[in-house]
Amino acid sequence: MELSGPIVLSDHRYGKSENRMVRIWRRHARHEIRDVNVSTVLRGDFADAYVAGDQRRVLPTDTQKQTAFAYAKDPGLQRIEDYALALAGHFVDEIEPVASARVEVDEYAWQRVSVDGREHDHTWVRQGPEVRTAAVTVAGAGTDRQAWVIGGLKDLTILKSTGSEFADFLTDEYTVLAPTNDRMLATTLVARWRFAGVTGIDWDEVHAGVRARLVETFATHHSKALQQTLFEMGKAALTAYPVLAEIRLAAPNNHHFDYDLDRFGLENHGEVYYAADRPYGLIHATVRRADAPEAGPAWTR
Amino acid sequence: MELSGPIVLSDHRYGKSENRMVRIWRRHARHEIRDVNVSTVLRGDFADAYVAGDQRRVLPTDTQKQTAFAYAKDPGLQRIEDYALALAGHFVDEIEPVASARVEVDEYAWQRVSVDGREHDHTWVRQGPEVRTAAVTVAGAGTDRQAWVIGGLKDLTILKSTGSEFADFLTDEYTVLAPTNDRMLATTLVARWRFAGVTGIDWDEVHAGVRARLVETFATHHSKALQQTLFEMGKAALTAYPVLAEIRLAAPNNHHFDYDLDRFGLENHGEVYYAADRPYGLIHATVRRADAPEAGPAWTR
Amino acid sequence: MELSGPIVLSDHRYGKSENRMVRIWRRHARHEIRDVNVSTVLRGDFADAYVAGDQRRVLPTDTQKQTAFAYAKDPGLQRIEDYALALAGHFVDEIEPVASARVEVDEYAWQRVSVDGREHDHTWVRQGPEVRTAAVTVAGAGTDRQAWVIGGLKDLTILKSTGSEFADFLTDEYTVLAPTNDRMLATTLVARWRFAGVTGIDWDEVHAGVRARLVETFATHHSKALQQTLFEMGKAALTAYPVLAEIRLAAPNNHHFDYDLDRFGLENHGEVYYAADRPYGLIHATVRRADAPEAGPAWTR
Amino acid sequence: MELSGPIVLSDHRYGKSENRMVRIWRRHARHEIRDVNVSTVLRGDFADAYVAGDQRRVLPTDTQKQTAFAYAKDPGLQRIEDYALALAGHFVDEIEPVASARVEVDEYAWQRVSVDGREHDHTWVRQGPEVRTAAVTVAGAGTDRQAWVIGGLKDLTILKSTGSEFADFLTDEYTVLAPTNDRMLATTLVARWRFAGVTGIDWDEVHAGVRARLVETFATHHSKALQQTLFEMGKAALTAYPVLAEIRLAAPNNHHFDYDLDRFGLENHGEVYYAADRPYGLIHATVRRADAPEAGPAWTR
Repeated sequence: MELSGPIVLSDHRYGKSENRMVRIWRRHARHEIRDVNVSTVLRGDFADAYVAGDQRRVLPTDTQKQTAFAYAKDPGLQRIEDYALALAGHFVDEIEPVASARVEVDEYAWQRVSVDGREHDHTWVRQGPEVRTAAVTVAGAGTDRQAWVIGGLKDLTILKSTGSEFADFLTDEYTVLAPTNDRMLATTLVARWRFAGVTGIDWDEVHAGVRARLVETFATHHSKALQQTLFEMGKAALTAYPVLAEIRLAAPNNHHFDYDLDRFGLENHGEVYYAADRPYGLIHATVRRADAPEAGPAWTR
Repeated sequence: MELSGPIVLSDHRYGKSENRMVRIWRRHARHEIRDVNVSTVLRGDFADAYVAGDQRRVLPTDTQKQTAFAYAKDPGLQRIEDYALALAGHFVDEIEPVASARVEVDEYAWQRVSVDGREHDHTWVRQGPEVRTAAVTVAGAGTDRQAWVIGGLKDLTILKSTGSEFADFLTDEYTVLAPTNDRMLATTLVARWRFAGVTGIDWDEVHAGVRARLVETFATHHSKALQQTLFEMGKAALTAYPVLAEIRLAAPNNHHFDYDLDRFGLENHGEVYYAADRPYGLIHATVRRADAPEAGPAWTR
Repeated sequence: MELSGPIVLSDHRYGKSENRMVRIWRRHARHEIRDVNVSTVLRGDFADAYVAGDQRRVLPTDTQKQTAFAYAKDPGLQRIEDYALALAGHFVDEIEPVASARVEVDEYAWQRVSVDGREHDHTWVRQGPEVRTAAVTVAGAGTDRQAWVIGGLKDLTILKSTGSEFADFLTDEYTVLAPTNDRMLATTLVARWRFAGVTGIDWDEVHAGVRARLVETFATHHSKALQQTLFEMGKAALTAYPVLAEIRLAAPNNHHFDYDLDRFGLENHGEVYYAADRPYGLIHATVRRADAPEAGPAWTR
Repeated sequence: MELSGPIVLSDHRYGKSENRMVRIWRRHARHEIRDVNVSTVLRGDFADAYVAGDQRRVLPTDTQKQTAFAYAKDPGLQRIEDYALALAGHFVDEIEPVASARVEVDEYAWQRVSVDGREHDHTWVRQGPEVRTAAVTVAGAGTDRQAWVIGGLKDLTILKSTGSEFADFLTDEYTVLAPTNDRMLATTLVARWRFAGVTGIDWDEVHAGVRARLVETFATHHSKALQQTLFEMGKAALTAYPVLAEIRLAAPNNHHFDYDLDRFGLENHGEVYYAADRPYGLIHATVRRADAPEAGPAWTR
């Protein structure tokens, strides 16, 4: 099949990715820290830059970087959702060709150091690998202003050593997997939750609460498959937080294989595992409220 | 804004990711090699596994892995697009609950070793970092069968030491960037091109040809911005290959900053650069034929 | 300068690297977990394999892997130092050509999940990025047996937002750095401590104690340079643990640069930092007891 | 065993790591490119900085960075060995407390783009993953000046699909590996060669020649084990280049396992392999001339 129509620019966007910034709040002897990675993306009327090399409507990505750093000072960087709303709103309000702006933020956690049993004022140790995430989209200026917030986390690696099975599955001529009624279950979770609105929300409380529901459900729900566990995790989060419209979960099945020790005269009843790198199962689930508002561009990167 | 509607599973999919396989063709003394990373994703009627823990319609991801390896033997793994079409088609045809299957393949290049000026029969050195990619979606069985193929490449790092400028851009109170009429331009390109059809195509020839057009255009087109260069690259590829419906380009601006040597009494006219890691500009462009068929699920991962 | 002497094999060793294993202790309802990465290296009389292709004295690396997994079951994998001593001792005792064996272990920490305020019996979340390390060398069989243990940690990222300066340094014609009396100090520490003996030691207690001394000293010691801080950290560890012969510290200076916001009319007094990736200062310090026994092969990888 | 002696600083060094710089030579229309990663390490009389916080003899790592960039302009960055000798020599000659300096350089290769069959003047594509390396140590000023150069390469991934066996090895009760007379052999080589002297050497020619000998020997030598192959590779390099004192090879055994397709009624005679990530065998060999001069600090990082 050959085409002959004119060749056109059909979509475009641009921004500055991975601005790594640390914000210290030091008004008091007890400092506070925020450590983030900020990426900005602008959409709008930039076609001339592409088709004609005309930059007159293009705000440099360097300027986006400067603005991201300046906004960390004022209005400031406390909750990443608020910061992202302010920064994205700035681009939409102040830069004429910008139709919509997206700001994504990864936040790295730090734990205050303990000295002689007391928390230290200005020293922290980096926590991880888990990362808190936010993705905010703002479109339209003035009364047309709309905004969407997606909270989330990634790299949350969680493991249960029992309470998981996988059996009674579909088989075909390529199926060699044996069913099991007791296996280890582990994943490195990515979870992203869309808020129904963007006002009156305690971002930190929702983040901590959703995380707790996800972890607790993983732990306590007897799993017949990672699929089921994910659905229950999502349901628990939405149940607890009616401010959420939907939650999207992506979960690799971090395979741990019982190591064959029989040949060495040793019994291995779920005690020694080989932790495999690749391949891995990858399960996706989206759970939502039936009355959720439309997602609009909320998920569009 | 609080919601009260029922909580439902609204989307789901699952598969096996990153099956790392090497295929040797050894019928003749001169062997051939294909080195790939294969991921499979199935969509369809698997809701019961999520909401009820019922696996009876779930083909294990382990079975998907076995099938991927078996298909590398027969029908075989030569062109990754053909392999992916066959494997995705198998899942749709043979596994009843599967509504659509997506197979993504990364291919790593190897160069035959030269010994005494002659190519060796069975030894190669790995090339890179560039990777060839394919993403194939097949939906519907029998006469409802539809298929989409996206070819591509990633991690193609390309650099020009002159022939690039960036000036006359929009400024605001956060703009400190100086315009320049001669700068280094470098990127690590991701390019993905959607074919209008899936039959009668010489996948290897198109891949080599599109790559050549992208590289040549980057080299020879005087750049007023990376945006313009990307559009011209995409246009050149579509112009040369009417079998393509669209091409999507994502290009970080790998910043190289002139190092300030003045303070040491040394002139630096584009000779010594600091190669920065982060942040980086990130430019996206989609170029398509106006008469391109609908993309359908082609881009849906 | 040209040489004409015979060409000889002057050194060799081999082993199996990165055996990723998880050990679950499940005798009680409350399970325990150990998650490790084990590498083995053998030295000895293997020259014939190199110079003549004769494998008769070579224990396959696959066998080393099997043994590493078997030893995780019995004698078991609790403290990594004990496990490594047993495994290394096995190779030296049982495999005739082995003159010495080295076992290196990385251990990944998991935190028990909390459900309704109580610790869960069999679910954990991965902690990090910090990793606990051990490197054990055993040489000589029977009464000639000698052993060396190096405990350690890596990827401990620690940051203080004040209490650090860097001034009065040597300058030359390439020096442009301004002295500062108040800067952020951050590093990603690698610390390795050699024990004077290998018996009668509570490995876990020493590990926790050394880590605490390192962290506390970093926090509370006013730093005139990262060099000084490292020395004080090492001294504090050795002072607290007379069982240690020496400690080696490697610390990148994770640079955080005050972001210039003056040009936007904003003051920045140590509030907004750019966290740089590369380059970074890298400081090494070895602190030891003057009466420490010889290190022998303890540090030889 | 407890120690009670005084606690002392027993070793120290510091430097600036990973200065990422690109050097363009643009006197002619046909530009040339060098892309490197430079790390500097200084040893000498810096103890006061550690034990007393006195920086008066410490050249800042920032100054080392500035110098590294300045030296890329003048005397310039062509062959990385010459550049490293000049830079290390500068620190030893000009900075009084410096007793010895080490400069390590990684060089990334770029291939000139071809346009209409002709090489382009100023556009390149990055080659890889292979990296060229150099490590230079200079100690002593004036007539006491000594220097050592180690050339090398890393990340050279090479694979042969036949011509390799592994059999007749030592077995014990943990040995389950089956001997094989025809297996795939692959590695990702690190090779470092020490020069007997540092003058009158064509660095580029030796690098290309050693690499060719390593690759050719891997290809053509029938392997009874990776150990044997490495020894032969090293011997071939030293034989060809009498300017070399020794060569050190580190080679993971990149395991490729025949995939079991029998169960699906398919024969697999070395055609379909699973490429494993971890664990991997790791083989080291050092080959040297019997009359090689002492290595001194050449290998000390």
